[in-house]
Amino acid sequence: MNYSIVFYIIGWILNFEAAFMALPTAVALIYRESEVWCFLATMAVCLMVGMILVRRKPKNQIFYVAESFVAVSLSWVLLSVMGAVPFVLSGYIPNPIDALFETVSGFTTTGASILSSVEQLPKCLLFWRSFTHWIGGMGVLVFLLSVLPMVGGSHMNLMKAESPGPIVSRLVPKVQMTAKLLYQIYLGMTILEAVILILGKMPIFDAITITVGTAGTGGFAIRNDSLASYTAFQKNVVTVFMILFGVNFNFYFFLLMRKIGQAFKMQEVRAYFLIIASAVGIITVNTVSLCGNALQAFQDAAFQVGSVITTTGYATVDFDKWPQLSRTIMVLLMFIGACAGSTGGGIKVSRVLILLKSVKKELKQYLHPSVVEKIKMDGKIVEHEVVRSTNVFMVAYVLIFAVSVLLISLDEYDLVTNFTAVTATFNNIGPGLALVGPTGNFGFFSNFSKLVLIFDMLAGRLEIFPLLLLFSRETWKRF
Amino acid sequence: MNYSIVFYIIGWILNFEAAFMALPTAVALIYRESEVWCFLATMAVCLMVGMILVRRKPKNQIFYVAESFVAVSLSWVLLSVMGAVPFVLSGYIPNPIDALFETVSGFTTTGASILSSVEQLPKCLLFWRSFTHWIGGMGVLVFLLSVLPMVGGSHMNLMKAESPGPIVSRLVPKVQMTAKLLYQIYLGMTILEAVILILGKMPIFDAITITVGTAGTGGFAIRNDSLASYTAFQKNVVTVFMILFGVNFNFYFFLLMRKIGQAFKMQEVRAYFLIIASAVGIITVNTVSLCGNALQAFQDAAFQVGSVITTTGYATVDFDKWPQLSRTIMVLLMFIGACAGSTGGGIKVSRVLILLKSVKKELKQYLHPSVVEKIKMDGKIVEHEVVRSTNVFMVAYVLIFAVSVLLISLDEYDLVTNFTAVTATFNNIGPGLALVGPTGNFGFFSNFSKLVLIFDMLAGRLEIFPLLLLFSRETWKRF
Repeated sequence: MNYSIVFYIIGWILNFEAAFMALPTAVALIYRESEVWCFLATMAVCLMVGMILVRRKPKNQIFYVAESFVAVSLSWVLLSVMGAVPFVLSGYIPNPIDALFETVSGFTTTGASILSSVEQLPKCLLFWRSFTHWIGGMGVLVFLLSVLPMVGGSHMNLMKAESPGPIVSRLVPKVQMTAKLLYQIYLGMTILEAVILILGKMPIFDAITITVGTAGTGGFAIRNDSLASYTAFQKNVVTVFMILFGVNFNFYFFLLMRKIGQAFKMQEVRAYFLIIASAVGIITVNTVSLCGNALQAFQDAAFQVGSVITTTGYATVDFDKWPQLSRTIMVLLMFIGACAGSTGGGIKVSRVLILLKSVKKELKQYLHPSVVEKIKMDGKIVEHEVVRSTNVFMVAYVLIFAVSVLLISLDEYDLVTNFTAVTATFNNIGPGLALVGPTGNFGFFSNFSKLVLIFDMLAGRLEIFPLLLLFSRETWKRF
Repeated sequence: MNYSIVFYIIGWILNFEAAFMALPTAVALIYRESEVWCFLATMAVCLMVGMILVRRKPKNQIFYVAESFVAVSLSWVLLSVMGAVPFVLSGYIPNPIDALFETVSGFTTTGASILSSVEQLPKCLLFWRSFTHWIGGMGVLVFLLSVLPMVGGSHMNLMKAESPGPIVSRLVPKVQMTAKLLYQIYLGMTILEAVILILGKMPIFDAITITVGTAGTGGFAIRNDSLASYTAFQKNVVTVFMILFGVNFNFYFFLLMRKIGQAFKMQEVRAYFLIIASAVGIITVNTVSLCGNALQAFQDAAFQVGSVITTTGYATVDFDKWPQLSRTIMVLLMFIGACAGSTGGGIKVSRVLILLKSVKKELKQYLHPSVVEKIKMDGKIVEHEVVRSTNVFMVAYVLIFAVSVLLISLDEYDLVTNFTAVTATFNNIGPGLALVGPTGNFGFFSNFSKLVLIFDMLAGRLEIFPLLLLFSRETWKRF
């Protein structure tokens, strides 16, 4: 393995983290908060280590799948460890594992919190918490690719390792341009949402933190009741943007290129909106008797469905109190997740489509054993490799899920809590049901369970295999 | 599709069902129960239709996968419908859907009941209920193959469609001899258990019904407390036999052929015993404080673990009251299930092994992209086709599971009840947790939910694809 390039990348990640921390530092200075030193100290450490690692540019800049998987996984672990330092230094989250949980939850855009009251945090920490969503949403290595000119041809592997979904395609021939385009769309939509919210009379600090949380489909809010106490207009704006950030970014690329027809023909995007519409419809009917007002029921259903399928995790009502049918739909949506190539988590709509198609193909093969049929998406043949690895992904997903539920059951909480705690972290959503429902938090779990859930959040965001590779003896044998 | 052979097979199945019903008829005569006419009437109908269907031997006796899938699925549906008639006629289960649920639960060796008190049933119905487990356990088409001389070469397809597991191998070159051998081992072990129980002072009727329920890994008991009120010796005998009937029957075949080494080298069997030993060990430690006696805790743990991993479903204690760790282990065991080629249900140990190996292979492929590695079981290469269909099986399994939970959530019971009701029926176990726990029953569900669970039981027993094929438009297009 080409370790020099791995260290080089990690070095840049640390430098970027220092740069990202300039923003919460600025927030601390604006609001004259004394915690500014926590960020300055962390930035100094990041820069010191980072500068040493990037001092020497590796001669061989080519890296293969294994290198990129290891680089991505290690980057995310380091990013989270360093990101947790300000929480510990400030004394607001004294337990390092709690702080790591909160930071991993941020970067992986999960939004599950161990804090029972977020309102007591200073603004700089609140901002940093939410901003980690934005960094993690589109991916920090994608960011690195977009700004750092690198020679060598296999950077696509790096992008594939971090970008969610079974198929990662370049929008344009050059990887760097693709990464830049993605970040431009991302930034543009972020600014648009913030401006609309500010025009809708939301306080500027709230608008910015909520927007970066929406953009990354994260879910950390700055009020204890999440988004419940904002105005209906503000909530509706967030609903729309949550759903938009869950769309495959290729869709926006096609729109920008004025390929409107091609955009609206994307099977994944159509399925995504169809699922949302059906879920909102059923839940509205199912819950209308609870709030007595059809429009209110529709708005609440749309917000909660948008929040959960995009794996954002904001809440305006406690869906744990909904009827069983609606609760079950919410749990299923948690698994489906958003589109591939979006900032959302979960299994991804396109993967669900490929899985359904592979079951259908299996059935057809029994009827016509001699006919070899190919699975298609958007009219194009899905490569055999992709189908196979999608199926194996699903298997690994189920296995990790089962082991995680078993491990955290050592804490002796109830089955719904354990099951949905893993669901909510592994799919990067945030809230689950019962003890970890929209009004609860993850603080009560033991440190061991928190470590299991930290693993699940990272495995969910990086789509399992990059992280699993860190635990394979073979990876390190060739050191 | 060759429909004449499908009808011919269905005809024989009905004839056999009439023959099987001679046994409960005899029980009714022995105990002078008035319900004897219910069986006689049903037998008459089965024979009448059956005789018409087998009157003409089809010229073309060759059938392919599609024919055997359809024949097996339709046979099981008809078998269950006719098997339910005596329950309805006798008036003990007046609702036809309830009666169908109970019979499907019997034939699929699930053992989930809609009855709140079984003790009020006459002995002939109790016997029939338990005997369906024995018929369904090894498979009624396997039975048909063992006694009916058929020409043509592709009966292996028929056996494959009904026998559980990813790989179905012939023990001996001829399919008919293989089927005969399986039934001989099955019958021998059944007789052995019954004799030991009778020697252990269990009443003869109890010994016979409990034995056929153990052999088929079914789970219907004839007392309301399942097996709780029998002696410790009797319970231990049942524990041992439950576990033995969950072993791949190839193991016994190797023993009979004196290939002891080959028998004990079977990876699946080793993994099966390893899982049982670990689960019993952990649960014993976890529950010892509940009953205060280590031996008692061990016996209870062994019985419950054996009952659940083999998907039998007898109970001696209410494991729903165990600590969360033990309860979670029980739920995971429900999914793993017994060995392939046994009478047990679930995903099957060998499938879990293949799935684990395919995840491991995927990881290795990232490290060494150029090396093509094959998955091996017992030293032999597992064919690519088997690995693929195992992965697709798992995907179909998860999809059907999710849809089932959603559909029965319409009844508005709690999530643990719904989740474990599907777990317990789809894996052919019997009891779940909460409302469907060892002390509960399935009677409270709506008719619609019962139909969903009936589908799940059949899909679980026939391993999904044969049953799904009945719902494919393509299957019937070519009529």
